[in-house]
Amino acid sequence: MNKVRLGIFGATGKVGGELLRLLEQDTNFPIEGLPKLFGSARSAGKLISFKGEQIAVLNSIPENIVELDLIISCANGEVSETLVPEALKRGVKLVVDSDSFYRMSPTVPLVTVGVNDEDIDWHQGIIAGPNCSTAQLVVPLKALHSIFGLKRVVVNTYQSVSGAGKAAIDSLFEQCREITTKFTPETLDLKQLKENDFAFNVIPQISKMQDSGYTKEEIKVITETRKMLHVPDLAITCTAVRVPVFVGHSESVNVQLYNNFNLPDVYEVLKSCPYIQLWENFDFFPTPVTAALTEPVHVSRVREDKSADNALDMWVVADNLLIGAALNALRIASEAIKRGKV
Amino acid sequence: MNKVRLGIFGATGKVGGELLRLLEQDTNFPIEGLPKLFGSARSAGKLISFKGEQIAVLNSIPENIVELDLIISCANGEVSETLVPEALKRGVKLVVDSDSFYRMSPTVPLVTVGVNDEDIDWHQGIIAGPNCSTAQLVVPLKALHSIFGLKRVVVNTYQSVSGAGKAAIDSLFEQCREITTKFTPETLDLKQLKENDFAFNVIPQISKMQDSGYTKEEIKVITETRKMLHVPDLAITCTAVRVPVFVGHSESVNVQLYNNFNLPDVYEVLKSCPYIQLWENFDFFPTPVTAALTEPVHVSRVREDKSADNALDMWVVADNLLIGAALNALRIASEAIKRGKV
Repeated sequence: MNKVRLGIFGATGKVGGELLRLLEQDTNFPIEGLPKLFGSARSAGKLISFKGEQIAVLNSIPENIVELDLIISCANGEVSETLVPEALKRGVKLVVDSDSFYRMSPTVPLVTVGVNDEDIDWHQGIIAGPNCSTAQLVVPLKALHSIFGLKRVVVNTYQSVSGAGKAAIDSLFEQCREITTKFTPETLDLKQLKENDFAFNVIPQISKMQDSGYTKEEIKVITETRKMLHVPDLAITCTAVRVPVFVGHSESVNVQLYNNFNLPDVYEVLKSCPYIQLWENFDFFPTPVTAALTEPVHVSRVREDKSADNALDMWVVADNLLIGAALNALRIASEAIKRGKV
Repeated sequence: MNKVRLGIFGATGKVGGELLRLLEQDTNFPIEGLPKLFGSARSAGKLISFKGEQIAVLNSIPENIVELDLIISCANGEVSETLVPEALKRGVKLVVDSDSFYRMSPTVPLVTVGVNDEDIDWHQGIIAGPNCSTAQLVVPLKALHSIFGLKRVVVNTYQSVSGAGKAAIDSLFEQCREITTKFTPETLDLKQLKENDFAFNVIPQISKMQDSGYTKEEIKVITETRKMLHVPDLAITCTAVRVPVFVGHSESVNVQLYNNFNLPDVYEVLKSCPYIQLWENFDFFPTPVTAALTEPVHVSRVREDKSADNALDMWVVADNLLIGAALNALRIASEAIKRGKV
């Protein structure tokens, strides 16, 4: 396999950090020399250690995009909009973009590896990775869809604050510290909690509200799932909720299938997916704490739902910073290289 | 209205405490003298202040059940099984029981006031109140069912730890204090979190697992909803999940109706229920922190779900210690007195 010259946009952020950690471990990724790391003007010049070397962060300006074949972007929508086209103009063959900016563009493949790898082949310079809550959802949905056919999906999320970035992690942490050091369980005054805080609360809104009454996050889950499964009219609804968890998204998924099934067959189908860890025993359930820092999509509590024909409920947990961002981006890049698409 | 001689089982617990607080405020409740308060042998003799008086807690033994018309039991299943029949033998005309022990008995009405008050009329000495997660759910479901007909319901809960009692509140509090005082957001080591702890975690199991793969809590939601709505074969499934919240249960409810609707009509139906506070504006969402210490069932995010005919999603939040326990028990007692059933 040819080695590629790699650049990383947003290298100093939470997802960028996870990506670098994964790259250090992944001895098979065919990188030529050291990656070029890009950050904001403020981060420029900062040193980041990578495989024993110190790499200086470059300012994210077009002039610094030189001699690169592949860029993985873990930055924001503004970088996607302005800098990604510049990168393509400057000879970069592929940008794998974690942001939402290009996801629904008909000329950009949206890919979760293990779900629709074949879409990598038709890229025109950009491949997008999905929203974190979609990424872990489509893996078991694709496995079920291939064999049984998806008729309708009802998803409820329990999303960690790390999906909202470092500031959200800090807020949850400090809010919890303040409450638990100011009070005891006996003196705890519930009126001191704030209804918009993350601490000891659940927030039924992630991202902006749309006129339909669904949030942008919920619309992402719906439209991105349809695009990756190639079922443009898939019947699917979603309620996306933030919970006071640092890392790890959980999803309760109710699925109606077209075909009859028995549970052992469903288990076989799910187990045959290399990206899924299936927990068959009802005595153990992975939680977000179980899933944090692990690579699989953990699927458990798969049970028959008698409230509809051919229906089941399942519990899907994964590390939103990994499968939901850095790990999937790295897998897309690896798969594109393998397919000669870089 | 005749005044009743009231006894309270489990008066020293969390729900018992809420009940006493409500009774102090409710000047219309026709109580004769002071209530008799019952607790465990360990609590016996303890003084509890009520409307400026000090009441000594009585040991929960049959001999202490004298000169009472009405008992509200906020104790456990053992008290329900052993002491409630004793109370009836000793002349008590009605026991309102918060525990699950009698709920599904065909000779015991299971009542949420505002949903099926008429079932109070056929009691034979015991009326049960529902599980906390069911109590808040059936209020909007009943309103919708009356007009549009329920076809299928998919419920996902986000339940606070207070539903698991005082020890659970203490655990969540102490676990959060330990983590946030031992680390900073920067040094936080996710591996120090425990996968069965409440802190910064969600636990997809409440109560015991059944062979079907559903938990006892989920079965309660399903069977109690059917009983109170008088729809024994209602198509309903549930996933019940514990979240790190002190007080206030949240529920994401997907409903398929038999009849066509438009949203303004649905809003009118929900608003016409005196126990519901409807939040029509999509810009504001009640959270469990909003709902804690308040009496209504807060319904928000009511939106059309295009994934099925006549479907909608909604977000239902309430104080699980009030509508889910003490408040509903007190309302049952009041309504029974009003109907001459004590």
